[in-house]
Amino acid sequence: MLYTEMTKEQRKQELASLKEAYAELGKKGLSLDMSRGKPSAAQLDLSNDLLSLPLTAEDYMGSGTDYRNYGILDGIPAAKQLFADILGVPASNILVGGNSSLTMMYDTVSRALRYGVYGGRKPWSAYEHVKFLCPCPGYDRHFCICEDLGIELINVAMTDEGPDMDEVERLVASDECIKGIWCVPKYQNPTGITFSDETVRRFANLSPAADDFRIFWDNAYIIHDFMDEGDTLLNLFDELKKNGKEDMLFQFTSTSKVTFPGAGIAAIAASDGNLALFRKHMNAQTIGPDKLNQLRHVKYFGGIDGVLAHMKKQAAFLRPKFEAVDAAFSSELAPRGIGSWFMPRGGYFISLDLLDGCAKRTYELCRAIGVTLTTVGATFPYGIDPRDRNLRIAPSFPTVDDLNAALDAFCVCARIAALEKLDA
Amino acid sequence: MLYTEMTKEQRKQELASLKEAYAELGKKGLSLDMSRGKPSAAQLDLSNDLLSLPLTAEDYMGSGTDYRNYGILDGIPAAKQLFADILGVPASNILVGGNSSLTMMYDTVSRALRYGVYGGRKPWSAYEHVKFLCPCPGYDRHFCICEDLGIELINVAMTDEGPDMDEVERLVASDECIKGIWCVPKYQNPTGITFSDETVRRFANLSPAADDFRIFWDNAYIIHDFMDEGDTLLNLFDELKKNGKEDMLFQFTSTSKVTFPGAGIAAIAASDGNLALFRKHMNAQTIGPDKLNQLRHVKYFGGIDGVLAHMKKQAAFLRPKFEAVDAAFSSELAPRGIGSWFMPRGGYFISLDLLDGCAKRTYELCRAIGVTLTTVGATFPYGIDPRDRNLRIAPSFPTVDDLNAALDAFCVCARIAALEKLDA
Repeated sequence: MLYTEMTKEQRKQELASLKEAYAELGKKGLSLDMSRGKPSAAQLDLSNDLLSLPLTAEDYMGSGTDYRNYGILDGIPAAKQLFADILGVPASNILVGGNSSLTMMYDTVSRALRYGVYGGRKPWSAYEHVKFLCPCPGYDRHFCICEDLGIELINVAMTDEGPDMDEVERLVASDECIKGIWCVPKYQNPTGITFSDETVRRFANLSPAADDFRIFWDNAYIIHDFMDEGDTLLNLFDELKKNGKEDMLFQFTSTSKVTFPGAGIAAIAASDGNLALFRKHMNAQTIGPDKLNQLRHVKYFGGIDGVLAHMKKQAAFLRPKFEAVDAAFSSELAPRGIGSWFMPRGGYFISLDLLDGCAKRTYELCRAIGVTLTTVGATFPYGIDPRDRNLRIAPSFPTVDDLNAALDAFCVCARIAALEKLDA
Repeated sequence: MLYTEMTKEQRKQELASLKEAYAELGKKGLSLDMSRGKPSAAQLDLSNDLLSLPLTAEDYMGSGTDYRNYGILDGIPAAKQLFADILGVPASNILVGGNSSLTMMYDTVSRALRYGVYGGRKPWSAYEHVKFLCPCPGYDRHFCICEDLGIELINVAMTDEGPDMDEVERLVASDECIKGIWCVPKYQNPTGITFSDETVRRFANLSPAADDFRIFWDNAYIIHDFMDEGDTLLNLFDELKKNGKEDMLFQFTSTSKVTFPGAGIAAIAASDGNLALFRKHMNAQTIGPDKLNQLRHVKYFGGIDGVLAHMKKQAAFLRPKFEAVDAAFSSELAPRGIGSWFMPRGGYFISLDLLDGCAKRTYELCRAIGVTLTTVGATFPYGIDPRDRNLRIAPSFPTVDDLNAALDAFCVCARIAALEKLDA
C-alpha cells in the first residue's frame, strides 16, 4: 500500500513497528558497506593468473623494441590495438597511459587550462570563468577534478536517455566559457542508464559557442555488461567524424574494473590533432607509461575476445547482486511509493531516488546501525543534492549474504525516513 | 704534444692525416650511439626474474589490505620503507608513486604553480616571473619541465663540489621570484660530480628571499656506484632539520636504473607538511599508484640489502665502459690539451669539455659517420651551451666493443674540430 494512501494513524503504527525492527537491527552490530564501486575479492580472483604471468624475451623483444627499457611515449602497439577493439576506434587514435584513466582526465583538463586544446585560440584559463556541464546524478570524481582546478560546475539533469540534451544544447550555444561536459555514456555512474542513439547523435551535432569545447566521454563501463544482452551505445567518434567534429571528443577507458583497480592500464581515444598536442605536452611530464604492464595485459587477454570472455565471468558475480537490490527495492520500496530506480544491464551502480528530503535521514539511520552508504550529495556538483533524495547504491563489493543483510536494514531505514517526512 | 704547442704546419699535417682516418671511418657504415643514459640489455637481464615473479595471496593480502583493489593514495608501507632505507629518511616522509620520478617532479612544479607550496602565501603563478636556478651542465628534462610550464631558467655554473654556492646564495637572497633549484646531488647528470659536504650544508643554510622556495633534489643515482667505493653524500633532509628548514626540500628517486626504466617505481621524500599538501591535491588527480608493481619490487629485493647487492651486479657492467671512456680521452684528448672531463665513481654520464666552439662541430662530424651523441646544448637551459664546448657522453647502452669503436671515431672527430678551431 502506498504510504501516501495510508491514514495518518496507519503511518504512525507502521513507523512504530519499523522503529522496533530498527532497534533490533541496532543490536546486531552490523558492519556492511554499499558505498564503494569496488570489485569483490571473487571478481579479482578471476584475474589472478595475471599475477604470475611470466613475460619472456619473445614478449618484450618481439616488436623489435626492448620494452624493458626507456622509450615509447604513448603506449605499445598491441595495447593500442586492444583498446582500439574495445572502443571501436582506429589504433592510431589511441594513446595508452598508466594505471588510471582518472589521472588522464585530470591531466587533460589541467593541460587544456594551461595551454588550451588543439585548435583553440588560447588557454582555457585565459577565460574569466571556465565552466563544465555536469549531468547529475553523476560521478563525484569528475566533479572533484573541476573543483580542484577551479572550474565552475553546472548541473544538467539526467533523463532516461542520458543528459537533458535540450538543456545541453541551449547552454553550450549560449556561453563560450562552457568548455566541457562530463559523460559516462554507458551504464552511467550512478544511474546505470546508457545514452540513447538520439542522445549520441545530438552530441555529435553540438554547436558550442566555444570553439575549444570538449566532450569528456568516460567510457568506463563500455564492456561491463552483466546481463546476457547488454546495452548498445552508438559510437560517438564515428558520429562526430560524419560531421567533421571529431576534435570535440576526448574518450577515456581503463581496465580498472576488468583486471585490478590501480594496477590496470588506461587509455585515451581522440582525433589525430588532439593526440599530437597531448604527445607534445606529455613529453615534458613523462618518459612514457609502464610498457611491461601493458604487455602483461595484452598477453593475458590475447585480444578483444579474451577480454569479453573475461567480462562474462565478472558478470556472473555482479548480476545476482544487482538482482538482489532490484528485488529488495521492488518488494520494500516500490509498493509503498517511496523509491524509484532503474535496473541497469551493466556497470557498477544503482541510483535510488527516495522522496524529496529523505536521502540524508536514510543515510544517517543506516550509519547508526553499521550500514555504510555513499555520502549523500556525492553524486552532485559541490556535494549538494538539491532535492536530498538521491542515493548511490554500490552492490559489487559485499558478498550476496552481506548485501541482503544490508538491503534489509537499508529498506527499514528508508521506510522510516519516508514516514517521518510524510508526517513532518 | 699539446695542439697549442704545435706549429701551424704541424697542425696542418695532423689535420690532413686525421681527415684520411675520418674518410676511412666514413666507409665503415658505423651505427653507434653514445647519446642515451639507458641501461644495456645485459643490465636489464639482471632484473629478469622480476618478470616472472609470482605474487601470491600472502603477498597481496598480507598487510590486511587487498592490494589488488582500489585504495592507498601514497604507496604501500613496505615500498615506503624500501625508499626510506635508500634515501635515509623516515618512512613517514616517503610517498611512493607510479613509474616515473620525472612525472612526480613535473606534477610537483605544476601544483606549486597552481596552488602554491605548503606554507606559501600564494600560488607561484601569482608572481610575475617564476624562475628556477639550473646548475649546468645539467639534466635537460629538468629544464624541459620548467620551459613547458613557463618558468624562466637561470644558469648557475657547476664546480668540482657542486653548484657554485656563492652564486646560488646570492641569487636566492636577491629575488623572491626564484622559487626553486634543480639538483642531481650524487653523480650529477652529466658531470658525475657528487656535491661536497660543504655544498650540502650551504644548501641546508639557504635563506631565500622567497619563503616558498624549494630545492628539487633529484637523487636519481644515490645507490648507483660502479666503483668499489662510491661517493658519500651528506643527508640534506637531516641537515635541513637541524636548521628547522626541512620544508624547503623536495627529494626524488626511482628504480628506473635499478630494475626496468619505465616499469619501476618512483618516490618523493619531503616534510610532513609538504606531504600532507601533496596528498590533498593528488586526491583529485589519482585513486592511487600501481600497488602491485610496488609489491613486486618489494618482494623481489626483500629489502635494502637486496637492492644494494643488485646494484653491485649493475656496477660490473658499467665500470668497464666508464673506464673505456676515461682511457680513450686520456690517451687521445688529454695529451693534446683539447678535452677535460671528470671520471666519476657512479652514475650514467661523463661530461666532456672540449675547446670553446668545438662541441657542435664534433657532434656534426660524428653524426656524418654514424656516431650519435647527445644533442649539443641539451645539458644547458634553452638548449644553449654559451661556450659550445660541452658534450654529454653516455657509455652505458652500447656493448664495450661498440663503445670502443664509437670512442675511436669520436676522438678523431674531436681532434679535427679542435685543429680547425685553432687555425680558424
